[in-house]
Amino acid sequence: MSDEKALLAVEHEVALMFRRGRARVAELSRRVHPELEGMAYSLLGYVEQAGPVRVTDVGVHFAVGKATVSRQIRALEELGLVAREADPQDGRAALVSLTEDGRRRYLAARDVRMRRVRELLGNWSRGDVDRFAELLHRFNDVIGEPPVE
Amino acid sequence: MSDEKALLAVEHEVALMFRRGRARVAELSRRVHPELEGMAYSLLGYVEQAGPVRVTDVGVHFAVGKATVSRQIRALEELGLVAREADPQDGRAALVSLTEDGRRRYLAARDVRMRRVRELLGNWSRGDVDRFAELLHRFNDVIGEPPVE
Repeated sequence: MSDEKALLAVEHEVALMFRRGRARVAELSRRVHPELEGMAYSLLGYVEQAGPVRVTDVGVHFAVGKATVSRQIRALEELGLVAREADPQDGRAALVSLTEDGRRRYLAARDVRMRRVRELLGNWSRGDVDRFAELLHRFNDVIGEPPVE
Repeated sequence: MSDEKALLAVEHEVALMFRRGRARVAELSRRVHPELEGMAYSLLGYVEQAGPVRVTDVGVHFAVGKATVSRQIRALEELGLVAREADPQDGRAALVSLTEDGRRRYLAARDVRMRRVRELLGNWSRGDVDRFAELLHRFNDVIGEPPVE
C-alpha cells in the first residue's frame, strides 16, 4: 500500500465509524424514548454530566446552531426528560437539567451501551485495546476541540 | 490499568471522536454553503457517490427518520445543491442527485478535508497509520451495519 492509500484507508474507516456510530446513537436515543432520534442520547449525556447548563453552552459543546439546539432541547422538555429554570446569573438565559425520569431513562440506555462496548471489545487482546485507545487519543488530539463560535 | 479501565478509555475516546468529528463535519457543511449545518456535508457526499438515489434510501443509509431526512434534503434543494426528479420505476418516489453547483461546492470542501487528513496524519509513522486503519476496521466490523428499518 502506498502512503496515500494508507491515509485513504484511515479516512474511509473514520467516515464509516461516524456513520455507524451515528446509527447506534440514534438507536440509543429511541431506546431512551421512542419519539427521540438523532443525537438526543448524546445531548442527554452532556446535560447529565454538565447540568444545570445553559442551552447556548450545549450548542457550543456539540457545535450546532442556536435554532437546532433549541429545537432539540424543546423536544426533550416536551417529553419530560429535561427541565428549564431561569439562570440566577442572567435572567434572560435558561439552565437545563435532567428530570428524574430523564436521568433514569438515560442511565438505563447508557448501561446497554456500556454492556455493548464490553461485548464488542471482549475478545480483543488487552494490547490491542490499549493500542486502539492510544491511537484514538492521538487522533483526537490532532482533530482538536471545535472552535468556539 | 484494569481491563475495565482500558475499555472505558476506548469508550471515552470514541465518544470524543464523535463529538469532534461532528463539529468538523458541521464546519465542512458551512464551507459548502454558509446556511448549511450539521451533517449536510455527509448527505451531499452520499448523494454524490450513490445518486440519483431515493430520499428514503438516504434516510436508511444514515439511520435517520423520514421527516428529518426530508427536511434536510429540502434545505439542500432550496439552496440549489440537489435536484429531484420522479423515479421512473415508482412515480410516487423522488430521486435526488447533485446539481452542478452542488457537486462543485461539495468537491471543493472534500479537497479541504482530505488535505486536512493528510496534514493530521502526516507526522505519524507508516506503521501507526496502518495499525490505526486496521483497528478501526475491526471496530467497525463489530459495530456492524445499522439494521434496515
